[in-house]
Amino acid sequence: MNAVPQRLGVLGGMGPLAGAAFALRMVQLTPADSDQQHIPVLLCNDPAIPDRSSACMGTGPSPLPAMLRGIDTLVAGGADCIAIPCNTAHLWFDELQAASPTRLLHIVDSVVADLRRQGVTEGKVGILGTPATIAMGLYQRYLRAAGYEPIEPSAEEVQRLCVPAIAAVKANRIDAAFAPAAEGVRLLAQRGAKAVVLGCTELPLAVPPGRRAELGIVLTDSIDALAREAIALMRPGTA
Amino acid sequence: MNAVPQRLGVLGGMGPLAGAAFALRMVQLTPADSDQQHIPVLLCNDPAIPDRSSACMGTGPSPLPAMLRGIDTLVAGGADCIAIPCNTAHLWFDELQAASPTRLLHIVDSVVADLRRQGVTEGKVGILGTPATIAMGLYQRYLRAAGYEPIEPSAEEVQRLCVPAIAAVKANRIDAAFAPAAEGVRLLAQRGAKAVVLGCTELPLAVPPGRRAELGIVLTDSIDALAREAIALMRPGTA
Repeated sequence: MNAVPQRLGVLGGMGPLAGAAFALRMVQLTPADSDQQHIPVLLCNDPAIPDRSSACMGTGPSPLPAMLRGIDTLVAGGADCIAIPCNTAHLWFDELQAASPTRLLHIVDSVVADLRRQGVTEGKVGILGTPATIAMGLYQRYLRAAGYEPIEPSAEEVQRLCVPAIAAVKANRIDAAFAPAAEGVRLLAQRGAKAVVLGCTELPLAVPPGRRAELGIVLTDSIDALAREAIALMRPGTA
Repeated sequence: MNAVPQRLGVLGGMGPLAGAAFALRMVQLTPADSDQQHIPVLLCNDPAIPDRSSACMGTGPSPLPAMLRGIDTLVAGGADCIAIPCNTAHLWFDELQAASPTRLLHIVDSVVADLRRQGVTEGKVGILGTPATIAMGLYQRYLRAAGYEPIEPSAEEVQRLCVPAIAAVKANRIDAAFAPAAEGVRLLAQRGAKAVVLGCTELPLAVPPGRRAELGIVLTDSIDALAREAIALMRPGTA
């Protein structure tokens, strides 16, 4: 587990835009002067994995068998470290890690590291994400263990603000995703959050970098946070 | 060969930004309302493949063995159709296709289809690309066979305009890439080109969509052209 990994496997497809955007950010965030200095990435961007939120809420089939097949494909293709650019999928993290011979990065660890990188080390941190991510407390327990006070929207607010923003990204209607996602950020800021976690990999696409300053609060982009962690691990000392 | 392929393999890494951008454009150009309607993609974005131009010009090792290993990884991972978002790599197309049990899409076919989609069916078409792509005539013979009159920059102009634009993209300095690439486009337009092929997958990144209108000429983006061909093949009737 201590050797520097040589090929990053990416279990994508959840959604496919987030998977491809993660692969792009891996390249853009890596310091490099030529092709050969970049990190080898194998991306399995298979969107046929059943919906994670539906499964978690008991209204759809489990995504676990399809996710395990994806892990198998990545390991067979030489991946010696795996990232999963989907927050909700991390509700199955323990089962995935148990079945995988290679190390899996945990997106919530990456987000906590990113909060610290941005100077937020304590206090209220807001969480936006899918209904399952919020209801199952994926972020809440990790943030509490790291010394933060997590706050989240109500179930009604998640349905009204997060769900349509995420659905718009998945349907390639990025422009329609900003307003509800931004309202979610403002609502948590009004309740005292010092930072807000864009805790679903569609949300950083809904609130693109160029429009973040207008929200006036620290935002953690879970796609970039996961990419930064992979780069720090695989190119130690460069970032 | 006639069945609709189910999983697109992408031999990327040449360069890695182009590989990731291709995966992103596959998602953005596919008509879909949910994750599950998107096309399954397996992207091998391994940038360790030796430089194609150097090999072709006799100043570096052959990329063929590394490309063949990439094809093997994709086929083992279930790919039943393969796209290679690197124009120069197509100088080895026949060897790659001979060694592959699955169909390879040819980027030059995709570009010719894209010229026709944009209404350019004859006349002078300019080509920008790497020194190897231009010197080896990758586009010239295909364009002639399709009824166009290909024109290209001189070897000195390729070195002065294409090479620095491509190198800037590979070093994540996108902003520095526009000016030389744009000068290459203008130079071919002045010589009578009705359209210019951005015939290296770094060049569409050097001349991003938002800055194409100012050049006042039809441009063919070889990344988008290849993605459109894959989507037309794998989602017949939707595009």
